Amino acid sequence: MNEFDLIARLTRSLSTNESVVVGPGDDCAVFDQGLGDRWLLFKTDAVVQGIHFAADAAPEKIGHKALARCLSDIAAMAGTPTAAVVTLALPRKFEPEFVEKIYVGLNALAQRHGVAIVGGETTTNPGGLLISVALIGFVPRGKALRRSGAQVGDAIFVTGELGGSIAGRHLEFEPRLAEARWLAEHFSIHALLDVSDGLAGDLRHILNASHVGAQLHKSAVPISRAAKANARKGDTAKPAFVAALTDGEDFELLFTVASKAAVPLLDAWKEMFPDLKLSCIGKIIAGEGIKLRDETGIRPLTAHGYVHFS
Amino acid sequence: MNEFDLIARLTRSLSTNESVVVGPGDDCAVFDQGLGDRWLLFKTDAVVQGIHFAADAAPEKIGHKALARCLSDIAAMAGTPTAAVVTLALPRKFEPEFVEKIYVGLNALAQRHGVAIVGGETTTNPGGLLISVALIGFVPRGKALRRSGAQVGDAIFVTGELGGSIAGRHLEFEPRLAEARWLAEHFSIHALLDVSDGLAGDLRHILNASHVGAQLHKSAVPISRAAKANARKGDTAKPAFVAALTDGEDFELLFTVASKAAVPLLDAWKEMFPDLKLSCIGKIIAGEGIKLRDETGIRPLTAHGYVHFS
Repeated sequence: MNEFDLIARLTRSLSTNESVVVGPGDDCAVFDQGLGDRWLLFKTDAVVQGIHFAADAAPEKIGHKALARCLSDIAAMAGTPTAAVVTLALPRKFEPEFVEKIYVGLNALAQRHGVAIVGGETTTNPGGLLISVALIGFVPRGKALRRSGAQVGDAIFVTGELGGSIAGRHLEFEPRLAEARWLAEHFSIHALLDVSDGLAGDLRHILNASHVGAQLHKSAVPISRAAKANARKGDTAKPAFVAALTDGEDFELLFTVASKAAVPLLDAWKEMFPDLKLSCIGKIIAGEGIKLRDETGIRPLTAHGYVHFS
Repeated sequence: MNEFDLIARLTRSLSTNESVVVGPGDDCAVFDQGLGDRWLLFKTDAVVQGIHFAADAAPEKIGHKALARCLSDIAAMAGTPTAAVVTLALPRKFEPEFVEKIYVGLNALAQRHGVAIVGGETTTNPGGLLISVALIGFVPRGKALRRSGAQVGDAIFVTGELGGSIAGRHLEFEPRLAEARWLAEHFSIHALLDVSDGLAGDLRHILNASHVGAQLHKSAVPISRAAKANARKGDTAKPAFVAALTDGEDFELLFTVASKAAVPLLDAWKEMFPDLKLSCIGKIIAGEGIKLRDETGIRPLTAHGYVHFS
């Protein structure tokens, strides 16, 4: 049983109430709490030593990543984060200075995005350091970007470059909050999420939620310098394109928009975010699954994204 | 460095914003999000195998406890919980049925209190099972019960019986949500919290936040049957009164109210909650710290409540 199977079992019959607009299964939960023009967003995420960061990672970067992952999920709904609580589960022996540096990283990122860190908990975790962050935020009523709105004919876009995040980006990435809000404000985005499990896996999340398929243009998928450098390490290294499809933790935005909006969007993007690449990597088609188009033709893509504890 | 020293260091300069009414240091964070007549509450809490439950604890009870601790903090502000997210950090090998039973316990408690479980995360924790729960809730604007409002002359009350929770109650307790809301609605409660670190430790939290002292009447402190039974186990067993003062995880309500309200409150309580003991255990005095009054006189109390990783 992998992570997704287990979650599917656990979420079959969860307690709910009438305030829930979006429950488990999207990037954030969404509530209508009678706030007038706003919906409330709610998200939690954890990083664990040995899984999400190495024992020798810089503590400031560990703190940064712990919050950045959660912020990226708020971005994935085109929301604005407002407050976070932090659970710090510490090994039995730890250096207070190390923990303070974790908070330096957390705080710096929180301040850049206007997020209050309003509390949390410290506890002991015999297995090593674990940081769980919960975030609340807001989104204009009815404007939360879901995974489920992709339509046949849509153009598929992705920001930045993919793959090879493990070489360093996974500890340093800046969540795409401003970019996602700008997209939601200026274009009718049909579906959006943040790429955390790998392009292939996350695109499938959109496809499954929207009951559509996709055709990817191999040559259009933006591949990171890190993935390319890694691919040159020898015959057993992961090919760069496979890394771009399946490596986790890119934290770029993946979204679909009506094809007629594709060119105006690209033009406006270049004006607004000249330093961040935006690539049209394919289109939404009828059917299911991902088809890959390259110079040799079109074939189904079977590679999965990164699946936790498979 | 113990838990409280570390938290004090970490919370000296946290990121904040203008929506924060109560930041770190009380039972929940409180926000004014422009909700009109309501403030938003936000809380996180974690339970860890080997710290908060034994490896052989029933999974339903582990799930119950993970959520109940957080709900108890919402009760400690006299709030109403609305939604939770759950981070489940699992050992590398686990039985899916075990995890499902954790959710049975979580769900049953959530449903009783109208709380939606709206998502969460599963990840791997090499050291063993850890469950982190984050909760949001609401409280009427201006009506959140703080730790800092105790006044000289107040009567000090505690619900239930204290000590010996480890014998079973810590896995089964029902958070005192209805009781706390009833208190806030019907009486001018000056300070309130839930007893999680032991009566002595938590009373000190009220005293320090309110800049007052307390005189406890030894004979009035309600001692649990479990603490008494444990004390009979031999000369090395913890005396029952010490257990009532210092054992953690009672999750009862500890509060102060003007002395003239004490008798009306006791009378109304017996009518409303006939099955739950309410004890007046002493009074708020000028000065600092706890003084204990028994048949031999009055002396300062030096025993600390349970301090994590001291």
